[in-house]
Amino acid sequence: MKVFSSSISFESKKENHLIDISIEVEREVRKSKIQEGVIFLFAVGSTCALTTIEFEPGLQKDFPEFLDKIIPAGKYHHDLKWHDGNGHSHVRASLLKPDLFIPFSKGELQTGQWQQIVFIESDNKPRTRKVEIKILGE
Amino acid sequence: MKVFSSSISFESKKENHLIDISIEVEREVRKSKIQEGVIFLFAVGSTCALTTIEFEPGLQKDFPEFLDKIIPAGKYHHDLKWHDGNGHSHVRASLLKPDLFIPFSKGELQTGQWQQIVFIESDNKPRTRKVEIKILGE
Amino acid sequence: MKVFSSSISFESKKENHLIDISIEVEREVRKSKIQEGVIFLFAVGSTCALTTIEFEPGLQKDFPEFLDKIIPAGKYHHDLKWHDGNGHSHVRASLLKPDLFIPFSKGELQTGQWQQIVFIESDNKPRTRKVEIKILGE
Repeated sequence: MKVFSSSISFESKKENHLIDISIEVEREVRKSKIQEGVIFLFAVGSTCALTTIEFEPGLQKDFPEFLDKIIPAGKYHHDLKWHDGNGHSHVRASLLKPDLFIPFSKGELQTGQWQQIVFIESDNKPRTRKVEIKILGE
Repeated sequence: MKVFSSSISFESKKENHLIDISIEVEREVRKSKIQEGVIFLFAVGSTCALTTIEFEPGLQKDFPEFLDKIIPAGKYHHDLKWHDGNGHSHVRASLLKPDLFIPFSKGELQTGQWQQIVFIESDNKPRTRKVEIKILGE
Repeated sequence: MKVFSSSISFESKKENHLIDISIEVEREVRKSKIQEGVIFLFAVGSTCALTTIEFEPGLQKDFPEFLDKIIPAGKYHHDLKWHDGNGHSHVRASLLKPDLFIPFSKGELQTGQWQQIVFIESDNKPRTRKVEIKILGE
C-alpha cells in the first residue's frame, strides 16, 4: 500500500464556472504509479465544490441555472456582516461539499464514459484555486 | 494494509427508483476479509447517485418527491441538444454525487440502525447499473 | 500504511444546529501519528450530516434557513406512518449525506483558512451523536 500526495491549481472565472479536471486527475493517477486504488480530491475553500457531470454545453448551463434558482444571490446574514455579497456562494458550496473520490483499476479511472470530474466555482469573482489530492492503493 | 476491488451490478426501474444495496455492501466487506477499514462505493454513470436513508416506504416516496419538486422534468438545455428528455436526471445526479464511503470495524458496517445504503436511479428509463467498490484497511 | 480507528461523541441541540468539529478532527489526526493521509468522517444516523462551511454567525443562520426553505417541515409520507414529525429531517440528511473526508499533510488538515468541518443536526429534537472516524495513511 502506498500514499501519493499531490495537488492541482488553476484560475477560475467568476460564479458558476464549471471546470472539467478529468485529464488532470487521470494524469495524477498515472504519476502515482499506483494501479489499484482510490484518488481523493478536495476543493480548498468555502465557496467552491466538486462533483461529476456529463460535461457538454447544455448541462454546463443547466447545472448553474439550477443553483441560481434554489440558492439565488440576494440577502444573506453573511453579506450583512461581511459585505462581500457572496453569501449564496457559501451556501452552494456547503450543499455540494468539497470532497469527491474516484476509484481506479489498472491505472484507469472507473468513471462512466459520459461522467467527467468538475470543479464548481461558486464565488462571485475569479479565484486562484487548488484541489488537494491523495491517492491510496497498491 | 490491503486493497480489495469489486463491483455490484443490478437492474434499475425508471426514474426515482431507490434500491437498498446494504446487504450487498456488507457481503463485499465480508468477502474482503478486511476487519478495520473503509468501503468506497462509486455509482458509474451521470444519471444516478448514492446516499443513505432510512429505507421505509414513506421516505421511499418522500425523497423522490423532493427531487421532483426542486429539479422537475421539463425544459433543459441538455434536452434541446440531445432530445433524450433526461436533463433533470443529470442535474439530480450531479447534486447528489456518485461517491459514498462507509467505515467498518470488526467486519461490521458502522452505519446506524435505521440508516441503509441506497442507489438512486435518476434516469428516465430502466438501466443496467454498476457500483464500483474498493475496500482499504487491514 | 496504517489504519487508525476512532470516534467522537457530543450532544446536539434541536434541528438546524451546526456544530464545528474541526478541533476534534485535528486532535484525532494528531493522535493517529499518521503524517500523510486522509481522515474519513461518518455521521451515524439518518437525520444528520457532515459538510464544510465558513463557521461564522451569518452562515450559521443562512445554511439552516436554506434547508428550511427547500425542505420545510410539513406533510411527509414518513410522518403519516411514524408520527415523529421528522420526515423533513430525513430528506435533508439524505440530500447532504453522512460522509466527508479531509486530506492532511505533515499532520495538518488541508482545509482552507475559512473552511471549518461541521456536523448538521437535522432531527427535531436534541440527540446524542457519534461521528465514526478512520484515518488511512503513513
